[in-house]
This record gives sequence, C-alpha cells and structure tokens, in this order.
Amino acid sequence: MTIIEDIAQMQSHRTTAPTVLVPTMGALHRGHGELISRGRELAGDAGSLVVSIFVNPTQFGPGEDFDAYPRAFADDCSLCEAAGADIVFHPSSKAMYQNDATVSITAQGLTETLCGPSRPGHFDGVCTVVAKLFNIVRPDIALFGKKDYQQLAVLQRMGRDLNFPIEIIGADTVREKDGLAMSSRNRYLDEAERAQAPAIRRALLAIAASSETNAATRIDLGREIIAKDAPLGRIDYLDIVCRETMVRLDTIDRPAAAAAVFFDKARLIDNIEILP
Amino acid sequence: MTIIEDIAQMQSHRTTAPTVLVPTMGALHRGHGELISRGRELAGDAGSLVVSIFVNPTQFGPGEDFDAYPRAFADDCSLCEAAGADIVFHPSSKAMYQNDATVSITAQGLTETLCGPSRPGHFDGVCTVVAKLFNIVRPDIALFGKKDYQQLAVLQRMGRDLNFPIEIIGADTVREKDGLAMSSRNRYLDEAERAQAPAIRRALLAIAASSETNAATRIDLGREIIAKDAPLGRIDYLDIVCRETMVRLDTIDRPAAAAAVFFDKARLIDNIEILP
Repeated sequence: MTIIEDIAQMQSHRTTAPTVLVPTMGALHRGHGELISRGRELAGDAGSLVVSIFVNPTQFGPGEDFDAYPRAFADDCSLCEAAGADIVFHPSSKAMYQNDATVSITAQGLTETLCGPSRPGHFDGVCTVVAKLFNIVRPDIALFGKKDYQQLAVLQRMGRDLNFPIEIIGADTVREKDGLAMSSRNRYLDEAERAQAPAIRRALLAIAASSETNAATRIDLGREIIAKDAPLGRIDYLDIVCRETMVRLDTIDRPAAAAAVFFDKARLIDNIEILP
Repeated sequence: MTIIEDIAQMQSHRTTAPTVLVPTMGALHRGHGELISRGRELAGDAGSLVVSIFVNPTQFGPGEDFDAYPRAFADDCSLCEAAGADIVFHPSSKAMYQNDATVSITAQGLTETLCGPSRPGHFDGVCTVVAKLFNIVRPDIALFGKKDYQQLAVLQRMGRDLNFPIEIIGADTVREKDGLAMSSRNRYLDEAERAQAPAIRRALLAIAASSETNAATRIDLGREIIAKDAPLGRIDYLDIVCRETMVRLDTIDRPAAAAAVFFDKARLIDNIEILP
C-alpha cells in the first residue's frame, strides 16, 4: 500500500483497470472497513483502490467539531491495508485549499430539509471537496455510506448535474450489535449516552414497521420512543422525506425517514428506507 | 468529422492520445477558426479535437440576448471541418440541464469587477457549463479566447480550485483589419455602429502606450477617445485591473485593461495586456 500526500502525484496516477475511491475523514471504524472491502471487490485484482483521508474544514460550520474531530492516521492506515486499499491519499489542508480560492460548488434543492437547515454551508463544503477528490483521483466508482443518506443523495445529484463520469454507490450502514449506526462520532458519547443511543435505531424501525400512511403519525411514534428511551438526547429533526428529492412527505408513498439526535457533543444521524 | 449530440456517447469516447476541447456557443468566425486550428496542432495527428457548440442558457441574464444569439449550425460544421476538428459536440439544452438540476458552480472573488457587476450570475453559468463539458469530454487541454479575459481568468481559477486535470490555455484575440475584436455579436451592429466600434481598440492601444502610472489618468485617456470617435456607444466599464485577481488598480504594476461598450443591442468587449 502506498501513502500519497501530494495532489499532483495522486493526479498523475492512472491505471486502465477501474479506479475505486472511498472518501473518508479518517477515524476509521468497521463501517469504513466494509466500504473499503467492497471497494476492493469492485476494483478487482487489476484495479486501483484509493482511500482518501481528509478532515475537510469547509464542511464544518462555526461551533461544530472540526478541531475535536478524531484523528488517528496510523490506525487508519492499518485498517486500510488490512481491508485491501492500494493507496491512501492524505493531502494537507494547505494543498487542498489555496488561500485565495474563489470557485466552489453550491448544492440547492436537496438541502432544504434534514441536516440542511441545521448545518448551513455543510453540503456546499461536501460537494466542493468531493468534486476536488473526483478530479484528483479520477475514479470510475466512488463509494459512500448510506448512514449519511442526504449526503449520498446530494452527491449523486452532483454527479448527474455536473456530469461526473463516475458511478456513485451507496453502501448499507454497518451497526453495533445493539443497532447503533457506526460513526466516528460515537466515541464522543459518555457511558450513559452510549446506553441510550440505540433508541434512534429502535425509533426508525418502529416508523418503518408501521402501516400508517400519515407521516406525522409515524413521526410521533418515533418521537415517543426517543423521548422515553433516550432522555439525554435532544432531537434536531425526525422527518420522513422523499428519497430522491428530500422533500418532506405528508403521506407516505416512496420515502426515507431520517433522524438526527444530539447527545451533548455528539451529533448522531441515522435513517431507514420505507416503502409505501 | 463526427457530430455527436448524445452526452453518454460523448462521455464514452476516449483516446489515449491528447484530447483537446474548444468550447464555443457557435456562430463561429475566423477567431474560432484560429482557436480550432491551434487545437489541431496541440492534439496532433493521433489526438482528438472536440469543438463543442452549445448556446448555454444559464450564462445569459434576464433581458440579455439568449433568444437573439445567432445560430448557424451548418456553417459552423463546415468551419469546424475545414479547421481540422474531429468531433463537433452539439448537445440539446434538455439533455444538458435536467429540470430539477440543483448543483452548480459558484465563482466569487474574480467576478466583482468588469463584467461581473453588469452580468449577475453570468460567470456561475459559464463555470457550470464548462465544468459539465470538462466532465463530458474529459480533455487534457481546453482552449479559450483571450477576448473574454475575465472568463479565462475565472475558468483558470476554477481549474485550480476544483483540481480539474486540464491545461486551460488562452489564445490571442483575432481582429478585423481595423482592429475590432472578432465576435459573434459583431453581426448585431448596424453600419454606423460598425464604423465606430474600432474606437474601443484604439482606446485600449492608447492606454497601453501611455507611460502614466496612475490608472485613472490612463482610463480618462481611453474614455476621451471613445467619447470622440464612438458617440453611438455607451461605456459600461473601462477599468484597469490586476491580471490575476481582477482587482481594480490605482497604480499600474501588473495589470490588464478591459473595456465593454454597448452599441444598442451589441455588447462588445475587448481588452489589452499592460506591463508596468
């Protein structure tokens, strides 16, 4: 496995076999490990599997956890190697963002619900860094976790709207035994919070299992479970939205439900797909 | 020469030799012809030279000349063929822009002077369509005319800030015998306007020939020439700006001067490079 920090060196690396990119912010866990293994399968023996590790400053808002975000580069490299990565791309912030950078990507439309209102500028920052990574690594396939469901929808839309010649694939969320979605931010939780956090998953399962067509009724069901089982948490949103447009639904036809709950410092998100 | 209208077909066309792209809005003139010939040289015999012809609706503002913009596809194809193009890429607006497009490119910083204030949203539209063309054609080199000086600066900045693996080259402006910069919009001029239009070039030459270090004094010199020789015209701006940042200069060290003059319907732009 090779570690590349230089953008030009990364950009000049070309193979004829498929190149697969798994973009990450490091602090890798078993969920990333499964994404990387899936990437290895898609790249095949002849292809090239690149894992990028870059904590992107432009997707954190003021007061968010950029400085506190966990960094564990040595452990991350071990996990990448074990999961079959060929290259870890690990650029510096200085190389990624010139001081006088003026051109960026703007995502509208899919960002008016869920995490959008709570994190102004977040998806613009995500789109900009992912577009840069796409242009640097030039993958044929890019893999993202479905835990960040809205992010995946926005990036697929970016791929379409800007005609990136890249297949953008979402991979299923990997969970702890008690159902909590794996996340680098789970390590922010203290013991009591950690014990309550699986309530998010239980609320979403109850929402999905319901046969109620009225979205508000299902949301109330989820809210009750979280209020009862996770009193340390604070709900940022619990909404049922259309999978493609991320628009809030009154009646359920083809939606996904997504919840975000704060547990003090940790902002945990999770979601579940629902069929009508 | 092949004409391709389908985006997927264009996107799947790959050669190992260099691919060169000349993006145009059609209504091609001798200036485009020289750009295309230059592209042929850069592509070489083995390379692929793609000319895109697409009147991009998103770079025209309300009240601008999108509907009136000249279209001459058959003549354009003849010129492309004669100048050595391999492929004319001619997509439909409907294929280029989905109704629910939500992700686009935003250019700030270089767009606060010159054409920026007069054409809000223009450079965002230019960047977005050029990024799309870059992702569809995937050229190694892209050629743009220096007549659109600010556009070239913005696109080079986009290339840098979004890490497009593309060399963006500016080609010298081609002129009529009397000095008027060739432009598809020149055909909007009536006879009297056409006779006065070369005053723009004379004003810029006088500005460049001056040894005055105070920018305002040089600008006054240019304004006088245009006022005297082109009374049918109306100056939108006549400014001296830094070549890289497009910031207005008080004192001349490393600048470019650019003028825009309206002649009724025609918005003509031209510029000249100045050394301190």
